[in-house]
Amino acid sequence: MTKGLCILGSTGSVGTNTLRVVKGLGERFRVLSLAAGKNLDLLAQQIAEFHPTVVSVGSPDCVEPLRMRLCAANYKRPLKIVADTEGHVEAATLPEVDFVVSASHGVTGLVATYEAIRAGKQIGLANKETMVAAGEVVTRAARERGVDILPIDSEHSAIHQCLRSGSREEIRRLILTGSGGPFLKTPKKDFDRITPEQALKHPIWKMGGRITIDSATLMNKGLEIIEAHWLFGLPSAQIDVLIHPESIVHSMIEFRDGSVMAQLSVADMRLPIQYALTYPERAPANGDSLGLDLLGARRLRFIKPDTRRFPCLDLGREALEKGGAVACAMNASDEVAVEAFLAGRLSFGDIPRVIEAVMKVTPNTNSAGLDEVLECDAEARRVAREQVADLTKRSTN
Amino acid sequence: MTKGLCILGSTGSVGTNTLRVVKGLGERFRVLSLAAGKNLDLLAQQIAEFHPTVVSVGSPDCVEPLRMRLCAANYKRPLKIVADTEGHVEAATLPEVDFVVSASHGVTGLVATYEAIRAGKQIGLANKETMVAAGEVVTRAARERGVDILPIDSEHSAIHQCLRSGSREEIRRLILTGSGGPFLKTPKKDFDRITPEQALKHPIWKMGGRITIDSATLMNKGLEIIEAHWLFGLPSAQIDVLIHPESIVHSMIEFRDGSVMAQLSVADMRLPIQYALTYPERAPANGDSLGLDLLGARRLRFIKPDTRRFPCLDLGREALEKGGAVACAMNASDEVAVEAFLAGRLSFGDIPRVIEAVMKVTPNTNSAGLDEVLECDAEARRVAREQVADLTKRSTN
Repeated sequence: MTKGLCILGSTGSVGTNTLRVVKGLGERFRVLSLAAGKNLDLLAQQIAEFHPTVVSVGSPDCVEPLRMRLCAANYKRPLKIVADTEGHVEAATLPEVDFVVSASHGVTGLVATYEAIRAGKQIGLANKETMVAAGEVVTRAARERGVDILPIDSEHSAIHQCLRSGSREEIRRLILTGSGGPFLKTPKKDFDRITPEQALKHPIWKMGGRITIDSATLMNKGLEIIEAHWLFGLPSAQIDVLIHPESIVHSMIEFRDGSVMAQLSVADMRLPIQYALTYPERAPANGDSLGLDLLGARRLRFIKPDTRRFPCLDLGREALEKGGAVACAMNASDEVAVEAFLAGRLSFGDIPRVIEAVMKVTPNTNSAGLDEVLECDAEARRVAREQVADLTKRSTN
Repeated sequence: MTKGLCILGSTGSVGTNTLRVVKGLGERFRVLSLAAGKNLDLLAQQIAEFHPTVVSVGSPDCVEPLRMRLCAANYKRPLKIVADTEGHVEAATLPEVDFVVSASHGVTGLVATYEAIRAGKQIGLANKETMVAAGEVVTRAARERGVDILPIDSEHSAIHQCLRSGSREEIRRLILTGSGGPFLKTPKKDFDRITPEQALKHPIWKMGGRITIDSATLMNKGLEIIEAHWLFGLPSAQIDVLIHPESIVHSMIEFRDGSVMAQLSVADMRLPIQYALTYPERAPANGDSLGLDLLGARRLRFIKPDTRRFPCLDLGREALEKGGAVACAMNASDEVAVEAFLAGRLSFGDIPRVIEAVMKVTPNTNSAGLDEVLECDAEARRVAREQVADLTKRSTN
């Protein structure tokens, strides 16, 4: 049976890889809707290749330019073009859509994913913010609708695969692994001199800007602790992080009998994407490059993360433990701080300072619904911008 | 519900560890019968602690000495003592027995395990010979009776655990790992000078004599390829062997989507024993020593085995590929050759020569039943003894 697919964030790294995977899966999926931001050239190409029936763009003023590109390419099939959060929601909740790949960032991605869950769609979740900012609201909705949320990132996909070897009650701890990023060996005193160019050079993965910087600060692992909590229902104390510079083991579960199950593979997003799309089946890999060469691999190491140099990891844990809106505020302020760093307005070492300051002033009340989550997100961004401005002023004085 | 347990080979390494595990599992198991060889002191202690109703000893002339030991210890409970293959079969097929741990070697272990399967008992299989010598006969009987055979060795237990993350049809290959034994770096020219004392020093596991020598020649991995074939239904071409000197990863499965699932743990037989006893549950480990310290571990390596120095590995594969009685003959001749080596009558380098010579004269006809398997076993031992005598004569001339 062919499943109807929606991809939120189709022109990003996960989105384009999803389309490659879908192509390899033949008749299993039919792409019914795509949602993207402003990369209209790529979006027009995707439309020409996959013939969706609905496409949502980042803002209303992108609609006409997209029409023109399609016209120039002589694209004649019927297509409804919508825009913005409302448009993304429409794309994600089309009646014929069975599965939604959630890979668009920010508030738009969060709202569209939430509405897709409420509409009973199966979810492949690449957008970490959904769980970090709104874990409680989203998992409650999924439970109510009986919706499966399948993780699309290498760590949580690995955990999902390992968990098939036991039950949740039998878990002693999850072990999230991370490469450690480009500054694994950089002394703390040099952190303020790190440039955006240096931080954007991730040793293993090619990803978007924010996630690459999050990997360099280890905030990424902090976010993943929170995501793991909501996906697998475990407390912070049962979620460990180990640095594994070879990035071959993508995460592990230690069960209470002493057995540790691990998932290993090449570092390629097509693996977790295909796993989520075809679960509970494992379809054949499309391409030899997806085979792991254990003989050619470097020796595998596991190192304790240095939370003194990388305080963001503990901030993530703290946000989870405090509960309520703190994780949402942390996520929002991290995004603001990373943007400021990439724009040259904030030093690398100041990123955790901004986040910590915002977390301090955020009450740990629970959000009753998505609206409150969005309010908290907006307020945290406002405070974060103030903090950035403050720090910038101080460093230029 | 308490399950009735029989342990074949209760005084050996797996047997004693099984009793430790059973103790830790509380009310889950009641030891109903034990079968052992001639270690009557230990057997008497086990009887005093676990109160079985039937005990089988290695030969009829052990019955009276065991009675005397129990009398001296003032043991008063009712106990039936039986002996030999027939006695082992009685112990393994008691009506109240639900689960049989098969850990006694040789023909006795094979026959008792086979009869336990035919009586519909669940099996925890530590005795490799059962599958190597009689894989076809045994798996057919298990299929007919709907009996689960759960592996009790670290490699196949690891594979069993990894396989829960996918289906058999989705396997690309099994990857059996092995420490490589004590002669991983010994040049081939020194193989004939290896003494039994050197060969008995296994770097990781403390095991019985034959299995330790089999680990040193890599015959152990050859036997495991055959066992994996019968347990998991895969052809030789889909069963790989990698040397992993750290012995932390106990085996892996590469699935067709490119994911590799691995099981890691300390090298302690209590883990696979408990896994088999409690499957599909994972009970809590009994003792902190069963936790894996990934931070303290050495870096993990995976190396291609050197089949030029260790020809036994390829002999195992060849026996599986030729089929029929060849694996049975290989197993029998290996046992004879190892005994001769341990007795100082055969050099280390001559072990594979004896096996190869016996395999050459064994027809690859299938055994219709256990009787034919036992005939083949006896004939292979006879030929192997001749070979050993020949080689001894040559080296002393």
